[in-house]
Amino acid sequence: MSEDIALEFDKVRQGIDQVDTELVELIARRLKLTGEVGRLKAQLDLPLYVPSREAEIIEKKRELAVKQGVSADLVEDVIRRIMRDSYATQTNTRAKNQQSQSRKIVIVGGAGQLGKMFVNLFTQSGFTVSVIEKEDWGNAEPKLETADLVMVAVPIRITEQVIQKLSHLPKSCTLVDITSIKDEPLQAMLSTHDGPVVGLHPMFGPGIKHLAKQTIVVCHGREQQSYGWLIEQLEVWGAKLCYVDSGQHDHLMAIIQVLRHFSTVAYGYHLKQENIDLDKVLELSSPIYRLELIMVGRLFAQDSELYSDIVFSNKKNIPMIKRFIERMSTLVELLENENIAEFNALFKDVSSWFGDNAGRFLQESNLMLAKANDLRK
Amino acid sequence: MSEDIALEFDKVRQGIDQVDTELVELIARRLKLTGEVGRLKAQLDLPLYVPSREAEIIEKKRELAVKQGVSADLVEDVIRRIMRDSYATQTNTRAKNQQSQSRKIVIVGGAGQLGKMFVNLFTQSGFTVSVIEKEDWGNAEPKLETADLVMVAVPIRITEQVIQKLSHLPKSCTLVDITSIKDEPLQAMLSTHDGPVVGLHPMFGPGIKHLAKQTIVVCHGREQQSYGWLIEQLEVWGAKLCYVDSGQHDHLMAIIQVLRHFSTVAYGYHLKQENIDLDKVLELSSPIYRLELIMVGRLFAQDSELYSDIVFSNKKNIPMIKRFIERMSTLVELLENENIAEFNALFKDVSSWFGDNAGRFLQESNLMLAKANDLRK
Repeated sequence: MSEDIALEFDKVRQGIDQVDTELVELIARRLKLTGEVGRLKAQLDLPLYVPSREAEIIEKKRELAVKQGVSADLVEDVIRRIMRDSYATQTNTRAKNQQSQSRKIVIVGGAGQLGKMFVNLFTQSGFTVSVIEKEDWGNAEPKLETADLVMVAVPIRITEQVIQKLSHLPKSCTLVDITSIKDEPLQAMLSTHDGPVVGLHPMFGPGIKHLAKQTIVVCHGREQQSYGWLIEQLEVWGAKLCYVDSGQHDHLMAIIQVLRHFSTVAYGYHLKQENIDLDKVLELSSPIYRLELIMVGRLFAQDSELYSDIVFSNKKNIPMIKRFIERMSTLVELLENENIAEFNALFKDVSSWFGDNAGRFLQESNLMLAKANDLRK
Repeated sequence: MSEDIALEFDKVRQGIDQVDTELVELIARRLKLTGEVGRLKAQLDLPLYVPSREAEIIEKKRELAVKQGVSADLVEDVIRRIMRDSYATQTNTRAKNQQSQSRKIVIVGGAGQLGKMFVNLFTQSGFTVSVIEKEDWGNAEPKLETADLVMVAVPIRITEQVIQKLSHLPKSCTLVDITSIKDEPLQAMLSTHDGPVVGLHPMFGPGIKHLAKQTIVVCHGREQQSYGWLIEQLEVWGAKLCYVDSGQHDHLMAIIQVLRHFSTVAYGYHLKQENIDLDKVLELSSPIYRLELIMVGRLFAQDSELYSDIVFSNKKNIPMIKRFIERMSTLVELLENENIAEFNALFKDVSSWFGDNAGRFLQESNLMLAKANDLRK
């Protein structure tokens, strides 16, 4: 390298270093300011996550980006990433409010992973929270008889059994469960308890740090107006609520949860039985294969009960899973007969069925894969 | 809202707006500087992507983040995201160099998606590039007899047939293919051509904009030293090279490519046959299910031939796919017999087989899912 170029190189790199330092300072400043917003919002009981406000900020800065000759997507990605940390800070600074201070919450299974998360959220928001675990049933009565809300947060296989113990709640108390099936628990709650009843299914694992933008499915049971405050509280925490009928919920979950978990377990089992060289696979993998592999492997870092509970939750799902296996066998036959034409025809049928969604999914997944590639070391 | 709080709110929001404006300016400044670095590197033929330099920048700013009370992961994510755009700019500003100006490249199938990408890369780097398509074989001879490198970039099913037409290349010309199977094309190239031969498998689709951090599998054929310049050129473009034996490559690809595509097509077919309500599923889906669904749907926005070519590429893969289906049937039997204990035992076996990787995959996928959630609107 000639000395001139070496000097120039050094100068430019120092410039980059300086920009990065300013970047860190700017991020710190932004988080202080959004922390302020959080405190003001909490005083006023305003929701943590307001999609229109977020969209407005993004849109303005996308326009500015274009003016400055920078990619609008780049600016959007950076701002959204910083916003994620703002939501986390804002959740922690949520203050108590009037409605919460007068309400008593009991969480059955509050020591479990998801239960604990709700214990923290309710506590941070100023509610009086108590927990009932297996060993506490002997002296649960005093907690239950003054409760405004009882939340059942226990594994699926014992949900109904636990609900049956809750037949003496005050008439005004709301009974709610957070199991990942909804029809049977909802029926059980309705027949055990005469007061307000609602089924929730938080569509996320226990790993998340705040509810902003997280989906919670709501299946109304009875006396909606009595638990309106709960729905509002979920929205204040930032959750995105999705209302469905409990039957439709279970039907859709059979596909998006039961079959997915089932085939992921089967795929992991297959990898093990074939004894493939995992390290070599990782070395070779592009972000897309790596992503698919880590989505399989992540399951096996978790409790098997989390998955077997869901997969075994309903015998009605078995015929659907068998149909899936039959369809795989149909495809294998095409391979054996080298019937590429039929395979391509079937592929095109599925493409039309996906319609415009296929193109959208391709775009969206390309964004995700680009992000996965950013992380590569 | 009281007037005081409203005023305070406004003031803080204006502050955030100001920070975001400075952020856009800072990003623009950084991209100008990295553009400079790109020009200097191109003059010196230095690689686009230097992992150690990237790691050093990140490490320094992670430390600064901690000092400023900001999450180090946040700062790392933001800098990596900006770096992605720097690589794209730097690729475009790559100048010609001495070695490239004297070399002639012929790309057979250069009008195809991946072929076109290599045409662009070689052209940008100053090589003399010509293309042979189906209709050009009549007057291909003049191009081929002066070629320094001939790259075969045609669909798998015609790769061997095309290679057989290349029996009169100059002895010093390097013959290379970029098919996603490697053993048969490599054997075909070795028997057709007496000179240097190498097989490449670019582990990415045609959608990418630059090679930085993209994996390319290299299967050496003959006379490595003669195509050392090609390997260097791939590294200058930023690619991550991974060397394996062509047999091992095909064995691993049977799992990570063939089986994956096969079961994704089967899953899409199943969704269609079950006629599930896709819009409702999307509404309900958490980032994790959405991600899994878009990874399925993205296939169907693409040419079915891209996938059927791979799935039908090798009849030897059929027994392995059948073993996968049998393993699914084994699991269904466990469901039918309500044998949760056996399911959990099997799950634990797979967990031990994944070993430490499972935990790493969980962490890594959590990072990805958090990013997916950032994108939600």
